Amino acid sequence: MNFIRKIVNPQRKEDEGFYYELKALLNFSPKKINFYKKAFTHRSLKLKDDNGDPINYERLEFLGDAMLGSIIASYLYKKVPKGDEGYLTQMRSKIVSREHLNELGKDLDLIKYVKSNFDKENVGDNIYGNIFESLIGAIYLDRGYNYCKKFIYEKVIIPYVDIPKLEGKITSYKGLIIEWCQKQKKQYDFDIYEDSGNETIKHFSVKISIDGSLIAKGRATSKKKAEEQASKRVYFALQDQITNS
Amino acid sequence: MNFIRKIVNPQRKEDEGFYYELKALLNFSPKKINFYKKAFTHRSLKLKDDNGDPINYERLEFLGDAMLGSIIASYLYKKVPKGDEGYLTQMRSKIVSREHLNELGKDLDLIKYVKSNFDKENVGDNIYGNIFESLIGAIYLDRGYNYCKKFIYEKVIIPYVDIPKLEGKITSYKGLIIEWCQKQKKQYDFDIYEDSGNETIKHFSVKISIDGSLIAKGRATSKKKAEEQASKRVYFALQDQITNS
Repeated sequence: MNFIRKIVNPQRKEDEGFYYELKALLNFSPKKINFYKKAFTHRSLKLKDDNGDPINYERLEFLGDAMLGSIIASYLYKKVPKGDEGYLTQMRSKIVSREHLNELGKDLDLIKYVKSNFDKENVGDNIYGNIFESLIGAIYLDRGYNYCKKFIYEKVIIPYVDIPKLEGKITSYKGLIIEWCQKQKKQYDFDIYEDSGNETIKHFSVKISIDGSLIAKGRATSKKKAEEQASKRVYFALQDQITNS
Repeated sequence: MNFIRKIVNPQRKEDEGFYYELKALLNFSPKKINFYKKAFTHRSLKLKDDNGDPINYERLEFLGDAMLGSIIASYLYKKVPKGDEGYLTQMRSKIVSREHLNELGKDLDLIKYVKSNFDKENVGDNIYGNIFESLIGAIYLDRGYNYCKKFIYEKVIIPYVDIPKLEGKITSYKGLIIEWCQKQKKQYDFDIYEDSGNETIKHFSVKISIDGSLIAKGRATSKKKAEEQASKRVYFALQDQITNS
């Protein structure tokens, strides 16, 4: 306990809560907590540092965007050896699209850390993507490129990057599962319910059963996304049967 | 010697020369020389690997471009703490502009490593920037992000990135030096001569003397660039006198 206090600054007890929340979010120990505080500080607070420079997340967004771009580029380069330069560029644009980043920021419920002078209920969607990027910038400054890469793999690439879907080969996993069940004369059931837990943003869970057995679950910030996530898991669980049918 | 042979592949003696040239260019030891061979292979050769995938530098260009973008972003973030997101974006665009990258590739004389089916005398300018990017991609795959960063600092940032000039505060170091000498009633001399050495691309050297003493030298692929480089060195050598005058 003394050890942690020393890291986060013994004078500020409130940092301790933030430190533990961050550690759970990042899946590693943050070292310089001020980078993360900046990553969640909106310009509306009009904070300034000792040099008179503004403290807010806008510069970190620029940095995080660049790191994300290079890490996704290196992932795609290795993952798709047959993809040419045009293909790689196009796939990266889809992964780092504003819409996609907003979704990520929303799903990670980053808004709850934001300090601002406005009502969080009424912000536009772009703030979610912006603070997702600024968080990446803060990770880079705090722990360097490899921690950034680890975070992006865990939070973006593994859960969200789906090459067949991005390529347009599969447009909806839900549609694919339903079509396959109908063809195979199997009963399917999508059980959806609100499941926000302690989170600021509304969440939904879904359980998909086929012929009475639970196959996979999903949880996300919209019904559609939770269904799609669970359907994707069903697809990968039953891939051999589905692709051979 | 045996040790080196083992690394580069004992069957191919010609790789040894390339290995030593690369090592001098990179300022560190390359490990997997095939990445660098690919970085300098033009599509006109129509090479394919065992999987039938094309071997040329185009995919590496994509990777190198992304790495360069993130390394320049992180440099600017730290170097210019007062620059906002718009400023940082604009400065990065200037540094990684096609024109600037072509210049870098030319200055490093990378064309001499390129294997192609066309006459190297008649290529467009873009090939220089493209192979500069593909070389960065190869460094990333061979040695990782930190070696990439080291190379970009040594070959791009230290010799070429000049914030006051990019900001438009100084448009020509040569002009500034001449103006200062005239105001101070000092004699100045720019001694320019061709100095290509063993390089494929024509090079020029310049010596700048003030009141008969040699102050700085420069060497580059055009007279104008060599003069500007030497003038910049004069500026930094005499900065206290110049800015206080």
